Amino acid sequence: MSAPRIRRRGLLLVLSSPSGAGKTTITRRLVEEDPALTLSVSVTTRPQRPGEVDGRDYWFIDQSRFDRMVAQEELLEHARVFGNCYGTPRQPIDAALAAGHDVVGDLDWQGTQQLAGKVRPDLVAVFVLPPNAAALEDRLRARDQDSASVVAARMAKSTEEMSHWPEYDYVIVNDTVEDSVALARAIVAAERLRRTRQIGLADFVDDLRAG
Amino acid sequence: MSAPRIRRRGLLLVLSSPSGAGKTTITRRLVEEDPALTLSVSVTTRPQRPGEVDGRDYWFIDQSRFDRMVAQEELLEHARVFGNCYGTPRQPIDAALAAGHDVVGDLDWQGTQQLAGKVRPDLVAVFVLPPNAAALEDRLRARDQDSASVVAARMAKSTEEMSHWPEYDYVIVNDTVEDSVALARAIVAAERLRRTRQIGLADFVDDLRAG
Repeated sequence: MSAPRIRRRGLLLVLSSPSGAGKTTITRRLVEEDPALTLSVSVTTRPQRPGEVDGRDYWFIDQSRFDRMVAQEELLEHARVFGNCYGTPRQPIDAALAAGHDVVGDLDWQGTQQLAGKVRPDLVAVFVLPPNAAALEDRLRARDQDSASVVAARMAKSTEEMSHWPEYDYVIVNDTVEDSVALARAIVAAERLRRTRQIGLADFVDDLRAG
Repeated sequence: MSAPRIRRRGLLLVLSSPSGAGKTTITRRLVEEDPALTLSVSVTTRPQRPGEVDGRDYWFIDQSRFDRMVAQEELLEHARVFGNCYGTPRQPIDAALAAGHDVVGDLDWQGTQQLAGKVRPDLVAVFVLPPNAAALEDRLRARDQDSASVVAARMAKSTEEMSHWPEYDYVIVNDTVEDSVALARAIVAAERLRRTRQIGLADFVDDLRAG
């Protein structure tokens, strides 16, 4: 006779980082390695880049569809960045959490702040920092489809974004992707064990005590 | 150039469980597998059992020494259980936490409550539950050096102790020791990443932003 599964609330893991510090890579790897994690796919009005897949990297939608989603409160958070709109659809997250499943997504700090007001206490917010300034600059320059002015704007934005680490529950310094994914997995494993999240515990202990 | 080590506060991990549910086994295994974890060894006035080692399982001391430690506030918590006294020496824990090291110990719920008043926010409290009532009874009967009346007293105590799970941060259902040790390791790994524990982050980010 093994242990019954304790009923629990789902959690919403959000990874943020300054542009280029690795939030997207770590998020994707987490989802690949843990079938119990559902990826939150954002909607965006920005043009699809070569290699990107609709519904995997983003849902690519036009401005009128985006505006309609905002008006009907179908987005948990949304923002305009470099002239393009981004948002997190509410319905798939609500459905997953209600079913006790876990969701993970990468968001900037503004998005995380908007989300925090709506899904606490299910939110677990992780900030990812680059190991040093040189590594960050290297990674920003490596996206060669971007113009020099876009790279410069990203560097300035990255430096500003770093100041938001105090708004997060956990901070990971992204030395290697492997290490960071392992650390993020530990955070997910631990957060699943939080007493406040295991809402079936009272019933489980009642059964244990009854013998 | 790799990431510098971020300065952080040590954490004090406490595992509690009803008698026989596995806190001591899990605690010992954690320490064996993680050289960065220091075991908190309790003092006790109870007689040394066959196979027990002084300074490893407990510090075996006499009543007058115990009373002196209580009087001089050298114990973070102490209690009398089945006529014997137990206590947690304060000095090794204070020294480890101050140096940014992590300490782990197993305590009953009374001990954890006493500790909580003294070492928050460094305390991380984990409650371990048996997977089912039959498994608990099997484990309590397996200590064959104990008399039937001690087993019966432990069963009654175990059932009472189980009601204290709501006082803990995390709850692990101890289905197998291997799984439980892995889950406890994840809790330690995650708690080390808590923003509030990484007190060197502000300096680290200042350096990053300076470039």
